[in-house]
Amino acid sequence: MSGFPVFASRRVRATPFTPRVEAAGLSSYTVYNHMLLAASFTSLEEDCAHLKRAVQIWDVSVERQVQLKGPDARKLAVLMSARDLSKAVPGKGYYTPICQADGGMLNDPIALCIAEDTFWFSIADSDMLLWAAGLAHAYGMDVEVSEPDVSPLAIQGPLAEKVLAEIFGDAVTALKFFAFDYFDWRGHKLMIARSGWSKQGGFEIYLHDSTLGLQLWDDIWEVGRAYDMRAGCPNLIERIEGGLLSYGNDMSREDTPLECGLDKFCSLDSENDFIGKKALLTQRETGLRKQITGLIIEGEKIAPITKIAPCFQGGQNCGFVTSAVFSPDFDLNLGLAMLASEQVEDGRIIDVEIDGKMRNARLTSMPFKPKA
Amino acid sequence: MSGFPVFASRRVRATPFTPRVEAAGLSSYTVYNHMLLAASFTSLEEDCAHLKRAVQIWDVSVERQVQLKGPDARKLAVLMSARDLSKAVPGKGYYTPICQADGGMLNDPIALCIAEDTFWFSIADSDMLLWAAGLAHAYGMDVEVSEPDVSPLAIQGPLAEKVLAEIFGDAVTALKFFAFDYFDWRGHKLMIARSGWSKQGGFEIYLHDSTLGLQLWDDIWEVGRAYDMRAGCPNLIERIEGGLLSYGNDMSREDTPLECGLDKFCSLDSENDFIGKKALLTQRETGLRKQITGLIIEGEKIAPITKIAPCFQGGQNCGFVTSAVFSPDFDLNLGLAMLASEQVEDGRIIDVEIDGKMRNARLTSMPFKPKA
Repeated sequence: MSGFPVFASRRVRATPFTPRVEAAGLSSYTVYNHMLLAASFTSLEEDCAHLKRAVQIWDVSVERQVQLKGPDARKLAVLMSARDLSKAVPGKGYYTPICQADGGMLNDPIALCIAEDTFWFSIADSDMLLWAAGLAHAYGMDVEVSEPDVSPLAIQGPLAEKVLAEIFGDAVTALKFFAFDYFDWRGHKLMIARSGWSKQGGFEIYLHDSTLGLQLWDDIWEVGRAYDMRAGCPNLIERIEGGLLSYGNDMSREDTPLECGLDKFCSLDSENDFIGKKALLTQRETGLRKQITGLIIEGEKIAPITKIAPCFQGGQNCGFVTSAVFSPDFDLNLGLAMLASEQVEDGRIIDVEIDGKMRNARLTSMPFKPKA
Repeated sequence: MSGFPVFASRRVRATPFTPRVEAAGLSSYTVYNHMLLAASFTSLEEDCAHLKRAVQIWDVSVERQVQLKGPDARKLAVLMSARDLSKAVPGKGYYTPICQADGGMLNDPIALCIAEDTFWFSIADSDMLLWAAGLAHAYGMDVEVSEPDVSPLAIQGPLAEKVLAEIFGDAVTALKFFAFDYFDWRGHKLMIARSGWSKQGGFEIYLHDSTLGLQLWDDIWEVGRAYDMRAGCPNLIERIEGGLLSYGNDMSREDTPLECGLDKFCSLDSENDFIGKKALLTQRETGLRKQITGLIIEGEKIAPITKIAPCFQGGQNCGFVTSAVFSPDFDLNLGLAMLASEQVEDGRIIDVEIDGKMRNARLTSMPFKPKA
């Protein structure tokens, strides 16, 4: 935490839920897609423990939707997505890397097929609208690219299903992972998906009208009381434990999805072309030079790292840690690192420089496994 | 100010100068182009007063450079820029709106002609790299689009010239507004422009190597002591007094440069085409439906507004305030508003809703003029 407050402005947008988030014990913010995102409430550690045992309501309005609508919407979605969306069906979401021509990642959204002529990319932190609009313009595609008034609200944690069933009826529990459907609420049809940026299960409600935000929050909160609901947010500890990568932290334009271990989301053997496919096919052929790995950093408890921490093997730089935090449940410092491929092997020991001090770190595959 | 601290991460990048900024009395941050930007030090008001009387050092690394390099660099720069860059010459900067096809603004950078085959866009807060890269890719242009390791450091205020002359020699004082040249410093060639986001005069140093950041800051600080130099940042009060528009606050994709009063930066009568030109020509022909104006908000001192404040005429909504703040020097609440064109007339009185209360506001042209 920097300790310095955020200066609010129109440029760094509030969300439809901001007043409730700030009243619910918020302790720090980050900014994501030009919008405020909670980063912690009680503390990272207590937030994490509560998420694992109960249910939380997360304002993830920052997951902006880039809407492609029109006769060429699917064509553009297919061209942009490493995952083959040519057969995507309405009612399903598809996690997909988006690459530039050299394979470098520009974003890793969930692509939602809303209708035959309408796709949404529920984006990570980069202006995907500009990439999509630039392509559409130059290719002369018949597609409108826009950011609709849609603000996702996530309900996450083991008790999420109980809360949603009470509000929206048992039908919501039939949703499969990454599927979405529409549910009645106060005369509106709310789009709800079984998804969310945690490994604790839950749902995301794609609120389609900002003016309804406070009412929606309040209705969920009212039901949530009986389930020990708290306000929360994507949790640094929980997401690292679960091996969830964060665009901008663990992945960037410098990294391909293969280097990020996202092979299974890249349709390299599909007949459809996408931007970056050629580069990824070459990389698959020639092999990786660097790749992401989990690692356990020895020594005393670390603070969350805020910048890259360089890694060494035999005194030679071999990459860097991209995210790291102390996990109370594992009683270990867990991290993610982008390392030279020849170093990446379970159990390998490397050196990591954190805050000017060298520590040993042991490489391990993800998700992390608790100590025996 | 939200009062909530920023949670630092790799995704919200620190700059080469961050340690010095934080040690120099920082009181709040904002985030701009995925990077930390100071928003205030002592207070907005005291920062403003000091900026007008002395000299400040501003970490504006957030002004990222989008580099176009290659045989088609100029072609792409011309296509993207509302201002005709076809005859842009090395050593000069050109403020230019960048539009999408419907004329909506995507950014308002300073375009810097670095060499015949190299342009930089020194950008406002949106991922222009993705727009440029999308266009270049789809048009099959022979141009590389990248973000070089360049971190602008601004020296602003009436004493800026004295400080720079002492460090870089008198030649720096010969720079014309928006011109740049290269000056020796510790064996490096530093690119320096006479520019900056204030009306107090000054320079921007385009540091080309992050690892030199602290040394550069320290060298300037050492000389600055004799001139009452302080750390500062773009100041909300000073920029509104001067009528400087902020992309994301006062301008967005919903607004054309003509609506934002930027006509003189749009080369509508040039023979060269640019994206959005057709829409702007039509708008010039048919007239504006909304446009930006200055306004003076009556009543007691306001806090800086953080979201749009709706405006009314005879009970009908006629637009909204985009930025507003109390100016101690003017002893007035000054604001910018995007209003229906039929309302925009010097001296017209409208109603503005701020924090749930209605106030009168008087429209006025910009820059604001002090009370008689």
